[in-house]
Amino acid sequence: MPAFQRIAITGKPNDTAVIETIRKLIERLEDEGLDVCLDAAMGAATESGDGRDIDDLASLAGHIDLLIVVGGDGTLLHAAKIVAPHGVPVLGVNRGRLGFLVDVSPDRFDEIARVVDGDMQVEQRLMLEARVLEDGRVIARSPALNEVVLQRWNTSRMIEFETWIDGEPCNRHRSDGLIVSTPTGSTAYALSGGGPIMHPGINAVAMVPISPHTLSNRPLVISANSRIEVRVQPDSIAQIRVSCDSQSDLTLSPDGRLEIVASPHRLRLVHPPGHRYFDILRAKLHWGDGAPPC
Amino acid sequence: MPAFQRIAITGKPNDTAVIETIRKLIERLEDEGLDVCLDAAMGAATESGDGRDIDDLASLAGHIDLLIVVGGDGTLLHAAKIVAPHGVPVLGVNRGRLGFLVDVSPDRFDEIARVVDGDMQVEQRLMLEARVLEDGRVIARSPALNEVVLQRWNTSRMIEFETWIDGEPCNRHRSDGLIVSTPTGSTAYALSGGGPIMHPGINAVAMVPISPHTLSNRPLVISANSRIEVRVQPDSIAQIRVSCDSQSDLTLSPDGRLEIVASPHRLRLVHPPGHRYFDILRAKLHWGDGAPPC
Amino acid sequence: MPAFQRIAITGKPNDTAVIETIRKLIERLEDEGLDVCLDAAMGAATESGDGRDIDDLASLAGHIDLLIVVGGDGTLLHAAKIVAPHGVPVLGVNRGRLGFLVDVSPDRFDEIARVVDGDMQVEQRLMLEARVLEDGRVIARSPALNEVVLQRWNTSRMIEFETWIDGEPCNRHRSDGLIVSTPTGSTAYALSGGGPIMHPGINAVAMVPISPHTLSNRPLVISANSRIEVRVQPDSIAQIRVSCDSQSDLTLSPDGRLEIVASPHRLRLVHPPGHRYFDILRAKLHWGDGAPPC
Amino acid sequence: MPAFQRIAITGKPNDTAVIETIRKLIERLEDEGLDVCLDAAMGAATESGDGRDIDDLASLAGHIDLLIVVGGDGTLLHAAKIVAPHGVPVLGVNRGRLGFLVDVSPDRFDEIARVVDGDMQVEQRLMLEARVLEDGRVIARSPALNEVVLQRWNTSRMIEFETWIDGEPCNRHRSDGLIVSTPTGSTAYALSGGGPIMHPGINAVAMVPISPHTLSNRPLVISANSRIEVRVQPDSIAQIRVSCDSQSDLTLSPDGRLEIVASPHRLRLVHPPGHRYFDILRAKLHWGDGAPPC
Repeated sequence: MPAFQRIAITGKPNDTAVIETIRKLIERLEDEGLDVCLDAAMGAATESGDGRDIDDLASLAGHIDLLIVVGGDGTLLHAAKIVAPHGVPVLGVNRGRLGFLVDVSPDRFDEIARVVDGDMQVEQRLMLEARVLEDGRVIARSPALNEVVLQRWNTSRMIEFETWIDGEPCNRHRSDGLIVSTPTGSTAYALSGGGPIMHPGINAVAMVPISPHTLSNRPLVISANSRIEVRVQPDSIAQIRVSCDSQSDLTLSPDGRLEIVASPHRLRLVHPPGHRYFDILRAKLHWGDGAPPC
Repeated sequence: MPAFQRIAITGKPNDTAVIETIRKLIERLEDEGLDVCLDAAMGAATESGDGRDIDDLASLAGHIDLLIVVGGDGTLLHAAKIVAPHGVPVLGVNRGRLGFLVDVSPDRFDEIARVVDGDMQVEQRLMLEARVLEDGRVIARSPALNEVVLQRWNTSRMIEFETWIDGEPCNRHRSDGLIVSTPTGSTAYALSGGGPIMHPGINAVAMVPISPHTLSNRPLVISANSRIEVRVQPDSIAQIRVSCDSQSDLTLSPDGRLEIVASPHRLRLVHPPGHRYFDILRAKLHWGDGAPPC
Repeated sequence: MPAFQRIAITGKPNDTAVIETIRKLIERLEDEGLDVCLDAAMGAATESGDGRDIDDLASLAGHIDLLIVVGGDGTLLHAAKIVAPHGVPVLGVNRGRLGFLVDVSPDRFDEIARVVDGDMQVEQRLMLEARVLEDGRVIARSPALNEVVLQRWNTSRMIEFETWIDGEPCNRHRSDGLIVSTPTGSTAYALSGGGPIMHPGINAVAMVPISPHTLSNRPLVISANSRIEVRVQPDSIAQIRVSCDSQSDLTLSPDGRLEIVASPHRLRLVHPPGHRYFDILRAKLHWGDGAPPC
Repeated sequence: MPAFQRIAITGKPNDTAVIETIRKLIERLEDEGLDVCLDAAMGAATESGDGRDIDDLASLAGHIDLLIVVGGDGTLLHAAKIVAPHGVPVLGVNRGRLGFLVDVSPDRFDEIARVVDGDMQVEQRLMLEARVLEDGRVIARSPALNEVVLQRWNTSRMIEFETWIDGEPCNRHRSDGLIVSTPTGSTAYALSGGGPIMHPGINAVAMVPISPHTLSNRPLVISANSRIEVRVQPDSIAQIRVSCDSQSDLTLSPDGRLEIVASPHRLRLVHPPGHRYFDILRAKLHWGDGAPPC
């Protein structure tokens, strides 16, 4: 008997390779006697509504055992934040090109089948929550699996803000902004900004300044249990936008206060057996010119 | 009654300011009724042997409640590794210029007095152990509080080696070497090499490649619980030296195997009350041009 | 007889220290028998219109022998671009804090007097011209003394564009943008972005990618005689702004073509005798901790 | 009639692919009626001495019209420095894998034939000369096509030295050393050290600090006409080695003085027609993931 009975599938919209992969997945999984449901967009795109449960992913999330995402890392980032609060494990299937998160090839149904049978690895991936404060109250919030970015917006000038950590002053910044990255996000935008790669097994976040005026303002790795507070200078508030995973934006209140903390939820990221983090890192970053280690 | 009864003092050799500070410390501490002992070099330098226990620091270490180190960060690094296995707390007094570790000014005997009375903060600082292997056996080992460095030696050419983490292949390196840094060491040599600053509260080490041939070979932060294994290519073994805190060197065996793991011992680093890590970071890195945060 | 007869003064607006310095300058220069004129804003601010020539700097530019700028580097950048096409030499006086360009202290009227007497150094500083193209025609242009920046605007996503140099394809970019910097600008924004410091004596520009997706997309130094062409992907055109010295902005045409070339004009930057470029660099970048070289 | 009549061939020693390529080259070039000679090692390795001029490359250099080097960039670096003082043009043939300097494939004899016929591009590549001084006299010197490296040797500690440029103090260094790189060397070791890529058409050198203690000690690009002087602190002299292209080493005199200037000679580097510098850069650095520019 499979470890998972009810499986939802979602994917990158408007992508014929994704649609084809999802159609095959539905057939294979149903052949195995599993109960497959689809998010609304994929149900329509694959014309697979017949007799299957089709709904928004948010509505499905409370009633599924596993989510399979077909697409790129961005597709998985988006879907994962919807289902993570429900504790739903997520498996990523790519479109033929390895991702950091979507690590299963669409040609390897055998790997998917093993996962569905419960032969798998599960990682708990840290997520963040960005909170906009006004008069001490949270007036807006957004989850992030990769990173929260404070960035200048509609201006060519540097912005000014302070960072405080666990109530203590950390640094005064003049820069283009700040990336607060999870280990998952450390191979994404934060890496372009000069941040370190962080193994998903550490409970830490990296604060990576974007083009800082002060050269000693270097990437800083702190505990994920810490509370990061950003206090924006009044002059800069209107010139700042906060972005989570480049997918959802927040606007600061006139207070100019932003808080970033670990989310109470973690993403349960599922891999086939034999998955090794460094194999993916090596492949994605072209380490060692592809030569196998001796 | 003081929290500590028997206090050892050591310091940077051949430094008149250090000698003067130690003389004053002895007087003040004995005025408070404390039992002061000195390491051999400082006993001779301060001519303070009379009636006091003078011995090698290693011999004193088993019988003291607190070690006060007077000098620079390098002095503390050296002494700390001697006493840490005995669980002795260490307090650092600088020579007038703030260090990352020696954070008490010699003019602030009030702060030292409070520490001695038990009004203090204690941090547990991660230490590493570097192990040279031959035929699977450890034939040499050395502790490190800042970093273990694998570096080319007596050659102008790049060296080649692989890194394995917890038994899995990580990367194949062609470079000038590798810095494996604790959070304590992250503001030292590793920072010059492009590594991130790591808060001492995280249980992690950074692997920072030195002038790597592959540009995507970037600093990597992993759990301090991980075992790092370095396998050196036979051609490179004779051109490599392993250095711990730039203070003690190890030579590889013909196997070319090096292991780096967390030491079973942690340094108990003591600060006066009110100590804040980021205040020191800000001062040492000239963050915010010295302006106080708002 | 002074080398310069007719001297214009401009300065940073709304700054009382600047106004005070300008008042003193007027008095001293007129005492020396020189003909002083002022740009309109400074004329009003210093209430010095009486009997003196007050006009827009652009109008004065054709009739003056020297421009003295009182303020910060940004003030000089702005004024220099107005007078450079007229070949007017420019001397920078700071407000008490050394700048890269405003290197004369307001307390050193002796140095200013020597310059006015012709005892000075003159540098020819490279300027750039950014040109927006449509159907092969230049529809907008702007000079830059520090840098031309192509940057994402109103978006949290990376932008995509290509660079061509002298008609040959150079690179395809996915990033937050590109800084094209003069030697003068190499110690400004380009340095924050990871670019090299370039001595003003080299006839070169640096192309510094901003947070590039590809880690091997590194700063590139090319001849200032080269023509840089940027071709923006259609999807990105609306999400891009071009900024010159963070002071004037250009919007791309639907063609998405931008050209950056050396300006036909150079800034004649004037220094007192004894000026040494590396002294300023050392002071501004805190090289050697302020210790004098041996 | 060919542009070149007398052609020497050299190559990477002990490499069967190189030997095979050279044998074919000899045959093809002699078929074209050209006079082929070989350096001693290649003459022996290819057993091609019969009736051909075989000698040390240094001896051949004065009597040849063109040198063809078969191997990697390191092979060309070595040979180029021997023939450059004689003005001999150099063509690089790789062993099947593109190099920065050896840019002709061994399969493209058509390209080699065109070069030999005079249909080619010739670049003048800057070379450096490193000079060890004692009592103001040059006691040792070595040419470099890529870079001169001042590096710590036989020590785990930082070295200390000053740089002076054209007789003026530049910086006081505490670091692992300094790379002084030509444009040719800017894609080699200097790139690993954080230096910029420099187009061969600029007459400049980059001074790239190796793991500098001061974070603002950043890569510096100056005119190739400048004279760089390094003054090593007495304590560091014994712990320093100077290396040119990782191929020849110099030891400092007790004075600790090193001078680096442009060599009076330039390498005449030959390419087939249609050669474009950025095509090679793009291929070697994997820019744009190999996708053709639009």
